[in-house]
Amino acid sequence: MLITLTTDFGYQDPFVGIMKGVIFSINPQAQVIDLSHGVPAEDVFAGALLIQHAVRYFPPGTIHVVVVDPGVGSSRNALLIECEGMYLLGPDNGVLSLALEERRPRRIIRLSNATYQLQPTSATFHGRDIFAPVAAHLALGTAPEILGRSADNLIRLAWPKLVKTGRTIKGEIVYIDVFGNLFTNIRADDLAPVPPDKLKIILGNLSIHGLAQNYAAVEPGDYVALINSWGLLEIAVYKGHAQKRSGAMIGDKVEVAWDL
Amino acid sequence: MLITLTTDFGYQDPFVGIMKGVIFSINPQAQVIDLSHGVPAEDVFAGALLIQHAVRYFPPGTIHVVVVDPGVGSSRNALLIECEGMYLLGPDNGVLSLALEERRPRRIIRLSNATYQLQPTSATFHGRDIFAPVAAHLALGTAPEILGRSADNLIRLAWPKLVKTGRTIKGEIVYIDVFGNLFTNIRADDLAPVPPDKLKIILGNLSIHGLAQNYAAVEPGDYVALINSWGLLEIAVYKGHAQKRSGAMIGDKVEVAWDL
Amino acid sequence: MLITLTTDFGYQDPFVGIMKGVIFSINPQAQVIDLSHGVPAEDVFAGALLIQHAVRYFPPGTIHVVVVDPGVGSSRNALLIECEGMYLLGPDNGVLSLALEERRPRRIIRLSNATYQLQPTSATFHGRDIFAPVAAHLALGTAPEILGRSADNLIRLAWPKLVKTGRTIKGEIVYIDVFGNLFTNIRADDLAPVPPDKLKIILGNLSIHGLAQNYAAVEPGDYVALINSWGLLEIAVYKGHAQKRSGAMIGDKVEVAWDL
Repeated sequence: MLITLTTDFGYQDPFVGIMKGVIFSINPQAQVIDLSHGVPAEDVFAGALLIQHAVRYFPPGTIHVVVVDPGVGSSRNALLIECEGMYLLGPDNGVLSLALEERRPRRIIRLSNATYQLQPTSATFHGRDIFAPVAAHLALGTAPEILGRSADNLIRLAWPKLVKTGRTIKGEIVYIDVFGNLFTNIRADDLAPVPPDKLKIILGNLSIHGLAQNYAAVEPGDYVALINSWGLLEIAVYKGHAQKRSGAMIGDKVEVAWDL
Repeated sequence: MLITLTTDFGYQDPFVGIMKGVIFSINPQAQVIDLSHGVPAEDVFAGALLIQHAVRYFPPGTIHVVVVDPGVGSSRNALLIECEGMYLLGPDNGVLSLALEERRPRRIIRLSNATYQLQPTSATFHGRDIFAPVAAHLALGTAPEILGRSADNLIRLAWPKLVKTGRTIKGEIVYIDVFGNLFTNIRADDLAPVPPDKLKIILGNLSIHGLAQNYAAVEPGDYVALINSWGLLEIAVYKGHAQKRSGAMIGDKVEVAWDL
Repeated sequence: MLITLTTDFGYQDPFVGIMKGVIFSINPQAQVIDLSHGVPAEDVFAGALLIQHAVRYFPPGTIHVVVVDPGVGSSRNALLIECEGMYLLGPDNGVLSLALEERRPRRIIRLSNATYQLQPTSATFHGRDIFAPVAAHLALGTAPEILGRSADNLIRLAWPKLVKTGRTIKGEIVYIDVFGNLFTNIRADDLAPVPPDKLKIILGNLSIHGLAQNYAAVEPGDYVALINSWGLLEIAVYKGHAQKRSGAMIGDKVEVAWDL
């Protein structure tokens, strides 16, 4: 069974490689994929957003390990969540919760069985000592209920709320990718009733008319708004970098208005 | 069959991991290697250069996926190129062309068969929706002609021209690696007729006498010129960083002169 | 058999991917893990430190390739070291030596058999031409003694010395991770005889009282000292970045004092 790893460990330190060593020591047949280790340090929402938009592209049964864990070593719980077609492993701080928006958990397990964890467990690296070994055992076929005790719920993050009137939707920038594209929390469905060419997208002083089909619909260097690969309204610059150009930041408000 | 991935997606976003999810969903036995995801954003020439100097080190039959694709979603074609001993997959913008300098394409296929692509295809992420699934199907044994229609040619980038006289060759810096080493477009073969100790290598105010066998031929901190692991003339600083030291940039002219 | 790769090649260039191409060309069944390619350029001690604290987490028989090699192409030797339960491959510049602190080498081989290396061998990329092919052959079962000639010793780095009195230990910062945590060369064992709450940890003007069990033992934004996942005394800021906050650098002195 496939195991994916998502962390804020970056690429300088050997921490991710050490997690893989632990996995292969327990389960030499494991298949491990790096989803991203570039989650901004301790940014639980960013980690939650990444895994939310990735899980649908993985085969049934995939085990997703998500370690963005500012509370490591404290009393926060370590969780295994079983859903239709996937497992999620990570700290109980909300980082797993957005991935559950479309799939209700079947079972939530608090990882309390030390037999399936490295001993002694460090206070600073549960990726190595708890999540990696549990993922490896799970991929070997160990039943979830053996790994800990059932829990009733988990900490959930809220998808940032939209403010809607009959003629406007107000949202915000929730993610900025390496190309400087600005991802908002406004989904394709939120805009679906309005013809794309009637929409006006407003960010600060910037106003974009209509939704384009792709970046190349405008001239190089021009702003463009479209529905991106995560199904979200995105503001971009064709062959440019919208974030540097606009100075926009995560959390900045974006308004969509129309006049039918 | 081995699949390699080369992109300008960087390491912060989950885009490469999502491509792997698509590949393993279709072909659970795939072997996937990251060649580089640090191609400078939308730098088609840099991507072409990387794959050109890597393909000879991979086993026969390897499928190389190269996604540096500023025109994603526009009318540019998506290509599969079959050569002796390898397949290349990527947009038709020249990024695949330098790898063909030594190996003529046997067949060029425009990837038009939507059955082997994710549906609906996004306008912004063909790595996920076209190139990853096609690579996975190809590795499963799907015949190239099933994946699309034959095309006659592809867009080609030119290797930057050298200006040669009887006693000089003028080239330029085409790549700078993480150590600050300056790679030029002058190849070992271009210099072969002249004894290495007769050569003078000139970059701006800097003049280096002779080609060395290795970095350690000079004192730490000194400039050195040699033929590097890509078979190209390189200017380096032993235990130092030639780019920071010299301020040189990609495109800067380099002249080699000799007096026999 | 598992092969791990640790280098200072970074993630921009395709050098690591090319090494994997060489490995899979020789040994299509190889399993390759990236430990880290973010070792600071030519920082032999940092590379030695990383591999030292990683090897215990890998399965018996793992082959660790460590290429931090400012002297590439010079007369420095290329080594294979066989220990109990693992192999180490890398240049003879000390980068392999700290991993031998707990495990004495059984055999040291100078990699002199060109048959098991790429030909011609470049002067600038022994990761590709020597270490990758040797690792691949070793994983195929080639006996170490076939790969070169026995050597008696290797260049060793010293673990930076502590200065101890009856009431103080003076050490220094040896590593700083991506979270800004400051790793010292003072080990848990060095502090073991003293009750943790009697210790005072001093870095410049900063003084921390007592060793904590985990980061969350203090308020967010406060400094904390603890034994970290490498068994080393660490100074951190809970939900913060101790390096940026303190301005501390590798090599800065850290003193631990107690008064029983």
